[in-house]
Amino acid sequence: MDWFLFCIFLAATFAAGATGAMFPTGEWYKQLNKPSWTPPNWLFPVAWTSIYLLMAFAGARVAVLEGSAYAMAFWAMQIAFNALWTPVFFGLRNLRASLPIMAGLWIAVFGATITHWQLDLWAGLAFVPYLTWVSVAAALNIAMVRLNPDQKPLRLETL
Amino acid sequence: MDWFLFCIFLAATFAAGATGAMFPTGEWYKQLNKPSWTPPNWLFPVAWTSIYLLMAFAGARVAVLEGSAYAMAFWAMQIAFNALWTPVFFGLRNLRASLPIMAGLWIAVFGATITHWQLDLWAGLAFVPYLTWVSVAAALNIAMVRLNPDQKPLRLETL
Repeated sequence: MDWFLFCIFLAATFAAGATGAMFPTGEWYKQLNKPSWTPPNWLFPVAWTSIYLLMAFAGARVAVLEGSAYAMAFWAMQIAFNALWTPVFFGLRNLRASLPIMAGLWIAVFGATITHWQLDLWAGLAFVPYLTWVSVAAALNIAMVRLNPDQKPLRLETL
Repeated sequence: MDWFLFCIFLAATFAAGATGAMFPTGEWYKQLNKPSWTPPNWLFPVAWTSIYLLMAFAGARVAVLEGSAYAMAFWAMQIAFNALWTPVFFGLRNLRASLPIMAGLWIAVFGATITHWQLDLWAGLAFVPYLTWVSVAAALNIAMVRLNPDQKPLRLETL
């Protein structure tokens, strides 16, 4: 594997992952009504770190293969939606606006999983935990909208 | 050009561009000390819309070419840093933390410009306005840090 190429993809995941550190969960997240099956807090950074490493690995493997155009387009799409979701959910505290972003992320990850799989088995497998986790995250986002109907987004412009 | 491929890249830019609509500039930005050469407000959405269209065009042209691995890795890196900058600057109002993100963005756009140019003249040219604009934005970010030394970031966790 081309390690410099891996590092560029990893830098992209670092930008997306930085949102998790910069937009902290804190008291606001604690007081939200959550479904019983919400994963424990400690699992989120562990899952995301593993997923970011796996997706950089998959990207670096597939980028050098012929016919990787769609795989690369979906890779780029998923990292952009990934970077957007956290600031909208934890920054703007906008549970509802997070839903279409999550939908875009799910579609991008689904597309990336299929297109990587078609070119390279290991790259395809590397996307499976991501697709699983994003499906859980989407279900969690939907459940939180339902369980917190009175939750108002933060109005940054009034601060 | 493969238009479906173009649309996937465009969807990625849409996620990054959505930050501009969701994290509005407003009163806080108005009261910041800005250098005399700050571009007028109306120019920002016009410039970004053009740049997003051009980068989707460049991505779709280059993705299908052999040897596009580095171009695609830099494309993915730039869109992730692009999506991150606005929430940190306008959401967290963290002028200082925006600087390393802007540095990462500049490096990614520079890398994308070079690698796209090597494969396709039009794709390379399509990245030139972006590189120019990001250089202006970086200079503006630096100037704003200098001109607003007492500006405190928003502490979301206390809200």
